[in-house]
Amino acid sequence: MTFEAYSDSQIALFNRYLDDNLGRFRNSVSQRFSPLLDAMQYSLDGGGKRLRPLLVLSSAQYLGLSSESVLPAAAALEYIHTYSLIHDDLPALDDDDTRRGKASSHKQFGEAMAILAGDALLTEAFGQVLQLSSHGFPPAHCLAAIELIVQYAGVRGMVGGQVLDVTTQELTYSLPELEFIHIHKTGALILGAVLLPTRLVPVEEVKLQKLRRYGEALGLAFQISDDILDAETSFRYSRGPRKKPKPSYAAVMGRTEMKEKLNRLIDSAISAIAPEGERAKALVGIAEFIRDRKR
Amino acid sequence: MTFEAYSDSQIALFNRYLDDNLGRFRNSVSQRFSPLLDAMQYSLDGGGKRLRPLLVLSSAQYLGLSSESVLPAAAALEYIHTYSLIHDDLPALDDDDTRRGKASSHKQFGEAMAILAGDALLTEAFGQVLQLSSHGFPPAHCLAAIELIVQYAGVRGMVGGQVLDVTTQELTYSLPELEFIHIHKTGALILGAVLLPTRLVPVEEVKLQKLRRYGEALGLAFQISDDILDAETSFRYSRGPRKKPKPSYAAVMGRTEMKEKLNRLIDSAISAIAPEGERAKALVGIAEFIRDRKR
Repeated sequence: MTFEAYSDSQIALFNRYLDDNLGRFRNSVSQRFSPLLDAMQYSLDGGGKRLRPLLVLSSAQYLGLSSESVLPAAAALEYIHTYSLIHDDLPALDDDDTRRGKASSHKQFGEAMAILAGDALLTEAFGQVLQLSSHGFPPAHCLAAIELIVQYAGVRGMVGGQVLDVTTQELTYSLPELEFIHIHKTGALILGAVLLPTRLVPVEEVKLQKLRRYGEALGLAFQISDDILDAETSFRYSRGPRKKPKPSYAAVMGRTEMKEKLNRLIDSAISAIAPEGERAKALVGIAEFIRDRKR
Repeated sequence: MTFEAYSDSQIALFNRYLDDNLGRFRNSVSQRFSPLLDAMQYSLDGGGKRLRPLLVLSSAQYLGLSSESVLPAAAALEYIHTYSLIHDDLPALDDDDTRRGKASSHKQFGEAMAILAGDALLTEAFGQVLQLSSHGFPPAHCLAAIELIVQYAGVRGMVGGQVLDVTTQELTYSLPELEFIHIHKTGALILGAVLLPTRLVPVEEVKLQKLRRYGEALGLAFQISDDILDAETSFRYSRGPRKKPKPSYAAVMGRTEMKEKLNRLIDSAISAIAPEGERAKALVGIAEFIRDRKR
């Protein structure tokens, strides 16, 4: 199977799970909460790449776990990623009117609803991960998964990086400063997605370290690929030029240097896990996708 | 011991735990996250009544658990309550410049930081509750506590109520509509605080039902007492008159009727648990405090 076919089937599996799950939730609560659920669903259905869910499923495959068994963990991370985009787009933060070619949440539903839909997605993300229990994972492992999510999504991870992103006023950064922000703001949740399945089953230390090397390199590579795409912004359908200047690799190095760095990071990510052969194929495919991504 | 002395000692115990915990956390992370931690601490230290932590500790006492053992659960709910106040005060929501006599978070730190400090508190709330593990509670019980928090803080609870609060445009409500909002927006987290300890130890169904009756009555009573205080707003040091009209009991009944309803609810809350004698004393004390509260 080509990586594209594999990835399409995994994303379809994930999207079905997300839809069914949200549908069941909707049917179990008062209809008065429909406007909130509509806002949550609008952003969850926003046509994202499902990179984090795909990483959870592929990392599970690397460890010999079925994709089906880790779907709740994949959903939890997609809920968190989605809330972060909604809050990130708010006027007080990035002030983006569009997201993936459609109106951003606050443009569609108003700022109050966007803030609350984000809060709801973040809270319910922990409800998603609880469903790992009914997928056969013991309670202690579910708690370990929650601990990892807090670590990579909270102060020490995504939110911490986001704060640095919005509070650092300078327009020129040193490379270490820039990478500290990126590692937290974007890299943390990507690394968290790669590591999440390691909390669900016993994993040898050496395998854990390989996945960590893969996830760390991939997180930075993803951000560089984002900055390269932003620099070629006229080719992007997903959003227009940014209203607010953001920390970017483009500020500290030229286009050629960025592409070289991207290639080095992707090579390093792949070399960490490729010796595992068949089990690593999906993770390798994701890394190659990020090397060549067009959106 | 009088209730005041008991409650002061419990609040002091809780505040020490919160301070120590946040201090340890601060020492364990990069100093670059200090501005975020400062914003979180500013609102956590905001001079609140600590009603939810006090309810967790008192409900634990009712069940024969030590206050010390449930401190992480109390902290988790105070983190969630605090994030909800920060987001609630934002210009897009209630647009309150002050909170408990000092500048609200976005006035002090800017809107971007206030949004992110709220997100951080919500995420780290789940990190708090994980610490129940090291207080001797088995993993399955910790998961049950997390499930309860998601239920009472998420779509079906506080956030759901908050959405109804900000999206309901009418200024006149029917009593059932008003109470549906209040039960979710304010009542849910209060009921959640009362019920949280029941997830940590085996509890007989009859005792669970008594605590539920107590918590439901107390949640509504608290909101009515809030509306009574708002109607007497010139006596309130904690905040000025609201910029935006809010659903209030004052819109559907007169002051005397509100006070009668408050008394009936407090009597009902107390009668549910008072027969338990000594163990219920703290919960009874909290109910009497809400009957007579001046802030």
